[in-house]
Amino acid sequence: MSDERVPLTPGQALLHGLLEPAPTKIVLVVMDGLGGLPMAPGGKTELEAARTPNLDRLAAQGTVGLSIPVAPGITPGSGVGHLALFGYDPVAHPVGRGILEALGIGMEVGPGDVAVRGNFCTLGDDGTVADRRAGRISTDECRRLVEMLRERVSVPGVELTLEPVRDYRMAVRFRGTGLGDRVNDTDPLETALRPVDPQGDDPPSQRTARAAAEMLRQVREVLRGAHPANYLLLRGFSALPHFPSFADAYGLNAAALALYPTYRGLARLVGMTVLDAGSTIGEQMGALKRHWGAHDFFFVHHKPTDSSGEDGDFARKCAAIEALDAALPAILELSPDVLCVTGDHSTPARMRAHSFHPVPLLLWAPASMRPDEVTTFGERPCMRGGLGQLLAKDLMPVLLAHAHRLKKYGA
Amino acid sequence: MSDERVPLTPGQALLHGLLEPAPTKIVLVVMDGLGGLPMAPGGKTELEAARTPNLDRLAAQGTVGLSIPVAPGITPGSGVGHLALFGYDPVAHPVGRGILEALGIGMEVGPGDVAVRGNFCTLGDDGTVADRRAGRISTDECRRLVEMLRERVSVPGVELTLEPVRDYRMAVRFRGTGLGDRVNDTDPLETALRPVDPQGDDPPSQRTARAAAEMLRQVREVLRGAHPANYLLLRGFSALPHFPSFADAYGLNAAALALYPTYRGLARLVGMTVLDAGSTIGEQMGALKRHWGAHDFFFVHHKPTDSSGEDGDFARKCAAIEALDAALPAILELSPDVLCVTGDHSTPARMRAHSFHPVPLLLWAPASMRPDEVTTFGERPCMRGGLGQLLAKDLMPVLLAHAHRLKKYGA
Repeated sequence: MSDERVPLTPGQALLHGLLEPAPTKIVLVVMDGLGGLPMAPGGKTELEAARTPNLDRLAAQGTVGLSIPVAPGITPGSGVGHLALFGYDPVAHPVGRGILEALGIGMEVGPGDVAVRGNFCTLGDDGTVADRRAGRISTDECRRLVEMLRERVSVPGVELTLEPVRDYRMAVRFRGTGLGDRVNDTDPLETALRPVDPQGDDPPSQRTARAAAEMLRQVREVLRGAHPANYLLLRGFSALPHFPSFADAYGLNAAALALYPTYRGLARLVGMTVLDAGSTIGEQMGALKRHWGAHDFFFVHHKPTDSSGEDGDFARKCAAIEALDAALPAILELSPDVLCVTGDHSTPARMRAHSFHPVPLLLWAPASMRPDEVTTFGERPCMRGGLGQLLAKDLMPVLLAHAHRLKKYGA
Repeated sequence: MSDERVPLTPGQALLHGLLEPAPTKIVLVVMDGLGGLPMAPGGKTELEAARTPNLDRLAAQGTVGLSIPVAPGITPGSGVGHLALFGYDPVAHPVGRGILEALGIGMEVGPGDVAVRGNFCTLGDDGTVADRRAGRISTDECRRLVEMLRERVSVPGVELTLEPVRDYRMAVRFRGTGLGDRVNDTDPLETALRPVDPQGDDPPSQRTARAAAEMLRQVREVLRGAHPANYLLLRGFSALPHFPSFADAYGLNAAALALYPTYRGLARLVGMTVLDAGSTIGEQMGALKRHWGAHDFFFVHHKPTDSSGEDGDFARKCAAIEALDAALPAILELSPDVLCVTGDHSTPARMRAHSFHPVPLLLWAPASMRPDEVTTFGERPCMRGGLGQLLAKDLMPVLLAHAHRLKKYGA
């Protein structure tokens, strides 16, 4: 496990000398994949089409704008999108592919674990890679193969956890004592080359590399004769990065209310307390109310806007937005000092995928919000909102400022 | 005195190869604390409520936007806010606390002087700090104590100047030969600890440290028995930083017209000629006219917008804005090539303090301005102005460009 601590970003370091305690509460609602597009010229986006009386009222009272997740034109994955919203710089301090893959499927990764992504591939008779993606086998086939490997592969002294991801992709977690993550990828990146042997850069990473080599030896054995997926290529060995926690970076005692394990994992990565949020948005709001007294920052994650967008289902995405809108009164009843609603990225139903478009952003803070001329929440109104177009990583300082948690800089 | 020169910022360095002379004149009017907020939901901001026919006409002809003083969410002090407007990076090259405190109260600090902030504190009988702020004594009490120390404390070979600031805070200027500023804070930062002895990192700083130690010895004597303020903790020993001057950074022969000493001090810090601006806005305009031929950049500072905001006096802030508006024809009569009106930060009357909100920005440059759709000067119109939201440190290049003082970059 790498012991390097990720330093505070320059932005966080600037805040550090300015933090002051205040009895204020911040709620950050992340509607996953919120940003959208019209399905046809002249149409409305999902957010513009949805009936959102509560969001519109907050937009009229507060300030809106657009959040640029990473940089103009960059489409982020969920991990990167959330880390940016949380104020961490995913470009300066990237999270390892293995860790993101593990978090993405809700695999629990703890300190000392090493995670890696595995791609099922086809090896030819000569031992070189014939197809790096094993003919893009189905997710079902991937599941079946992982099941088989789970039963028949084991490495002494290291606990292996294997999980299917999607298509030809799977993930492996190595859990044991003194494992390092400075291990090369085994994927040769081109066909007609042999897979590369895993090697470690230091003694702990050599332990991981030996475990990986032994695992791969057994995988080859077990999958001998299987076709097209008869081997695994490993990429992105990585341990949990030591991000400065929300407590260290912002002086916040933060809690996460997320129904999906990926987002609980991301919240844990930055030291949030992960609360039991139940399995419905109603239970999520109930949990928020129950734990309201114990924390001063709440990350509320709403998934259905993303999954419906990925499915290309415009109407279902509208309904997912409306479901969150209907839950807002339960948040407002708690009288947050700062309420922010945005997304980690756009997932236009029209594109059936994450996109690079800036994401609608709404800020409501009764004591200090500066109203703009916008009266509804939607992509077009947000383009002329008072927050302008903000990099996601600059959002946290704005929320802290509105929560009276930042002192003046300089005399 | 530290001999390190602050380098040009990357932005200034880029300009440097592009500067070219032109017979043009730039006026930068800084309405201190200009940005505001409505006092109640649905209301107008100070600038929106004020009657400003001249500013509105310039806004209609020119381009407006919002200036972000330091970074989103950051509330700047006056020193930092002005340095940012002048194009210096206050984060990369912070100005010492002692210098900012001294400038903030209008104490004149010259090359070779060392300034430090003093906090009156309470020492217990055992010599440890019982209260780092001496029970937050009143400004009147602070003044009385400083008076007393002035009469009875002196250090051979070093001229001490003591000034009250506010509440428990005061400032000390050390003037003498060969004084350095690499001296530690004496504040132990926690109670129940002894104050730290001042020590210098190099021979000049050791001279300062010895003078400070001798001063503190006498302070302890003089305040013996006084309660709660019976000692001083010193923080932020600092000499005047060597900022590149306006002449070096921008090729400008700049002059400052400021009625308050703090702003004259800040102007001196960047090598502006400080003109006698009288004591009223009328006299300030008269001085501008008198010196019009001798300079090509004029920094005109207007204080009452900030002081009325700090007092929470919405109507007085409106009046202060209207007073500046009424003075604009006197500036326009001189036919400046570029006229910019903005603020160093926001001071909403509603918050009775500096705030982090972006600041209205107006640019009028007959030869090259690109009009937007905005026809009045105010926070809301500025949100849809043609300048967008600009970091304050990026303003100077824009002013130079409109003044035809920057060549093309690259072939």
